[in-house]
Amino acid sequence: MFLNDIPNEIKSLSIAQLKELCETLRQKIIATVTHNGGHLASNLGAVELTVALHYVFDFPEDKIIFDVGHQCYAHKLLSGRADEFDTIRLKGGLSGFPKREESAYDCYNTGHAGTSVSAALGIAKARDIKGENFNVIALIGDGSFNNGLVYEAFNSLKPLNTNILVILNDNGMSISPTVGSMHEYLEILSSDSRHREKIERHANIFERFGFSYDGVYDGNDLECMIDKLTEVKNKLKTGSVILHVYTKKGKGYAFCEENPQETHGVSSSSSKPSLQYSQVLGETLCELARKDKTIFAVTAAMTPSLGLEPFFMEFPDRCIDVGICEEHATILCAALATQGIKPFYAVYSTFLQRSYDEIIVDICSQNLPVTICIDRAGISGADGETHQGVFDLSFLNCIPNLTIAVPKDGTEFRRMIEMSIHFDAPLAIRYPKDCKYSYGDKDSEIVPGTWQILKKGTSDIAILACGERAITLARRAMNDSGVSATLVNARFVKPIDETILAQLNQTHIITIEDNMLAGGFGSVILARFADSGKKVHCFGYVDKFIPHGSVGELMEDFGLSCREISEYLKQCE
Amino acid sequence: MFLNDIPNEIKSLSIAQLKELCETLRQKIIATVTHNGGHLASNLGAVELTVALHYVFDFPEDKIIFDVGHQCYAHKLLSGRADEFDTIRLKGGLSGFPKREESAYDCYNTGHAGTSVSAALGIAKARDIKGENFNVIALIGDGSFNNGLVYEAFNSLKPLNTNILVILNDNGMSISPTVGSMHEYLEILSSDSRHREKIERHANIFERFGFSYDGVYDGNDLECMIDKLTEVKNKLKTGSVILHVYTKKGKGYAFCEENPQETHGVSSSSSKPSLQYSQVLGETLCELARKDKTIFAVTAAMTPSLGLEPFFMEFPDRCIDVGICEEHATILCAALATQGIKPFYAVYSTFLQRSYDEIIVDICSQNLPVTICIDRAGISGADGETHQGVFDLSFLNCIPNLTIAVPKDGTEFRRMIEMSIHFDAPLAIRYPKDCKYSYGDKDSEIVPGTWQILKKGTSDIAILACGERAITLARRAMNDSGVSATLVNARFVKPIDETILAQLNQTHIITIEDNMLAGGFGSVILARFADSGKKVHCFGYVDKFIPHGSVGELMEDFGLSCREISEYLKQCE
Repeated sequence: MFLNDIPNEIKSLSIAQLKELCETLRQKIIATVTHNGGHLASNLGAVELTVALHYVFDFPEDKIIFDVGHQCYAHKLLSGRADEFDTIRLKGGLSGFPKREESAYDCYNTGHAGTSVSAALGIAKARDIKGENFNVIALIGDGSFNNGLVYEAFNSLKPLNTNILVILNDNGMSISPTVGSMHEYLEILSSDSRHREKIERHANIFERFGFSYDGVYDGNDLECMIDKLTEVKNKLKTGSVILHVYTKKGKGYAFCEENPQETHGVSSSSSKPSLQYSQVLGETLCELARKDKTIFAVTAAMTPSLGLEPFFMEFPDRCIDVGICEEHATILCAALATQGIKPFYAVYSTFLQRSYDEIIVDICSQNLPVTICIDRAGISGADGETHQGVFDLSFLNCIPNLTIAVPKDGTEFRRMIEMSIHFDAPLAIRYPKDCKYSYGDKDSEIVPGTWQILKKGTSDIAILACGERAITLARRAMNDSGVSATLVNARFVKPIDETILAQLNQTHIITIEDNMLAGGFGSVILARFADSGKKVHCFGYVDKFIPHGSVGELMEDFGLSCREISEYLKQCE
Repeated sequence: MFLNDIPNEIKSLSIAQLKELCETLRQKIIATVTHNGGHLASNLGAVELTVALHYVFDFPEDKIIFDVGHQCYAHKLLSGRADEFDTIRLKGGLSGFPKREESAYDCYNTGHAGTSVSAALGIAKARDIKGENFNVIALIGDGSFNNGLVYEAFNSLKPLNTNILVILNDNGMSISPTVGSMHEYLEILSSDSRHREKIERHANIFERFGFSYDGVYDGNDLECMIDKLTEVKNKLKTGSVILHVYTKKGKGYAFCEENPQETHGVSSSSSKPSLQYSQVLGETLCELARKDKTIFAVTAAMTPSLGLEPFFMEFPDRCIDVGICEEHATILCAALATQGIKPFYAVYSTFLQRSYDEIIVDICSQNLPVTICIDRAGISGADGETHQGVFDLSFLNCIPNLTIAVPKDGTEFRRMIEMSIHFDAPLAIRYPKDCKYSYGDKDSEIVPGTWQILKKGTSDIAILACGERAITLARRAMNDSGVSATLVNARFVKPIDETILAQLNQTHIITIEDNMLAGGFGSVILARFADSGKKVHCFGYVDKFIPHGSVGELMEDFGLSCREISEYLKQCE
């Protein structure tokens, strides 16, 4: 079976051939993801459902939006992209998420949770206005279902007066196991699947929003899915439908089925395991929490990747994973802090964007001592533009009352966490995934707003480097260029260290940061030295969305090139 | 009755005296709001409920969080702030919203919708951890109930394993009438109030989240409220409760009862009516939409204040008010744009913060031609820190693909809207409420990224002024100082006008913007002229949250002082 012919041929295949196709897809996904890294378990679970969708519906005329988009691999393979599938998540290759630029079969880019129903409604409404006639499908997992956006979208189905199909792909897992009452409710539906009467009563919750509800069916049963989707396609002519299916995360690969959380996302075979900042967070917070009963940890569906599983195991009464609800998580932290509890909100930089209003209004305008631990800051790599953590310094910088810290290594991160315990104001600490240098100067306490001179240089150049990646790059550039500059660990972006700044008698000031240039650390230094006669030059990311690739490649391509920094150093000397 | 004695005496008052108290509060609120401006109808509706709460519960030991906070006036009057009530919303006076800094009776600051349940959960959880014993109440209107945050908070009630009381104060109005299915559902509850059996079935939707539900009762019936709250207070010992009450918005003031939307917020008696940018938006969009069938308008519960009521009347099939759901609104626009529909998303600057992630991921990373019309940008005045629109230029500046425009007057705004129709990329236009200069140069088309030299000066100074307020200030400062500078209408913050910039041969460059200094327009110009030998000085807001007061007072106090700009001009000359 040639996968690239599938888009034209799929409707003429027999059930036996379709089942064979499922097996082919599954093997291709396992082989590729094991090599390139990516989302494994969720994609394996969605194979039969995706084949049935392509068999029953007419893509790309019909439109499908994959919520989050991490379960779109079979869809990519079935829509003419099989030959390029080996390149997935590699620089210049296929994206690991739906991309309109890549194929007409991808009608809406996703990456963050809970957007699919809103997007489906918008596309369906546009169709109605234009008098067109196609089907619009949102495929959403039970993890995304916790996000308030889904509820907001449901709430406007009736006012929009349009028809969509929502397929709830229920596998009981966000990334961590799905939490919360909605999940319990979905479980009731699943367990009641043989009692139609009960289901009809339960179904009310969706029907009130204007959907007809149908479920729960086995999403890994290809024939069942084909039957149900055919039936539902017909119903869509007169109204909106929620089709509730359950699938087995990791289906068909025993190791995944048994370890769905660990195999949700897997690293590429070439990536070396290293110390991660998340481990430092977990270990340090556990140690501190043994002594300090006020410490509380909040996450939004990413507990293990944030290093907080040990904390959640040891202190079950002083933590919560709220599900994919970053806004709610932020307010919860602010409210805990009003009562003398010390909350740590750990979150990926890219998802922190969801909390922006609450960081301003709830945490910072009330000046509450919440510590926000921002993981995967800077370029995060293979997940591409929707996941790069390159905006945080820019969007946080303008918020009053907020202190922003950027550790240079694991030890410094540990000291910052320790410092935060008695820090009586909002604090954000941002760091990338990998922590190459775990131990710097062991004993020094961190005073907020202080920097550190790492090296005194002989030239008329001072480099203010912000975070581990920037410092590493500065050292490499000095090495490559042979230029000896003064190197400063600018570990606080806000406030900046006026004592060290006043001492800098160099004419050339260079800033380096793993963040957008606009509004980042460099912009703070430019403002500080305006009118000073010093020449300030900033290195950071240029004004473009950064696609997928390896961290090193992308840093080089988008503004943090060692060669360019070296050349600039030579030019200044 | 002396209102300032009430906190100590309220529990000893008879029902007759409490009713008299309600009347006193109502008169005080009407008199004060009519004079100072503020939220009128919602506060009048909540008088009996608030008196009953203070009678039954023990504040400040018990905690109450007012969702949005606009219905807290009676609470302020009952908690020892009656003597200062005349100062509400005036500079240095009481805030129009709950403020922890103001009184122990205000336990959590609010301003934006939907946060109260999350905050109540956080406070209750902290209480449990500390082994304390008090009641926590979230008072929330049906408009806020549409926001996804409420659903996220409900969803974590069971995992948090704590008890709170949610009072749903249902008046059928957000600011505009409440929309959506949840509202319909609440209406069913209200209309079924005499059929207990039906209610019990409906109540499931809340009970699944772990609440016991009780309703619907007349929130303007003081005795009923006292009875119900007493009953509920007892139930709170063993679980969480939703108490559903209906109140009459504007209760007791016939004009308000009949015009609840118009009297939701009223202006102070001293403020003069003037042209508003919102009118220009409404008129222009209607004109354009008559010719262009693809134009679509999206709002989040603020249609009249955004000037879009005429559009909604004339084009009912090409608009939606999604309720207080800014995230959903943003995605809906992005999705419409993928299908060739031209969406205009009108929103207040402060509420746009809620859409931040979706602006980045859904609109800009997909490079979709959505026009975001950002009203109440800059200092908005009397609503205080939670409502100032001073962050938008900073948080938008770092987003690739986004063009940011700032009109200098009503005509220019009109031209920008016209231009946006054929502009094939994301566009944000930000403007304040009042539009003092409605007609500038009548005929000129706007080319994106172009500025305009308004005046050629004789000194070695160029002022780049961004928006109407900045230009007005620049003119005044030149006038006051007698310094003749070149004045540029920097009507695009992104991209900037390289042609004009290249022509500027002045040594002193001054930027003025109605936005935070950090990451704002000035930071773009600092970066542009780094290394150039020019002296750049930026005027904008300093790194502080800006409280309530009049626009002029606050601009003066927080960084846009005409006197300071004049002095700087003289100093440069």
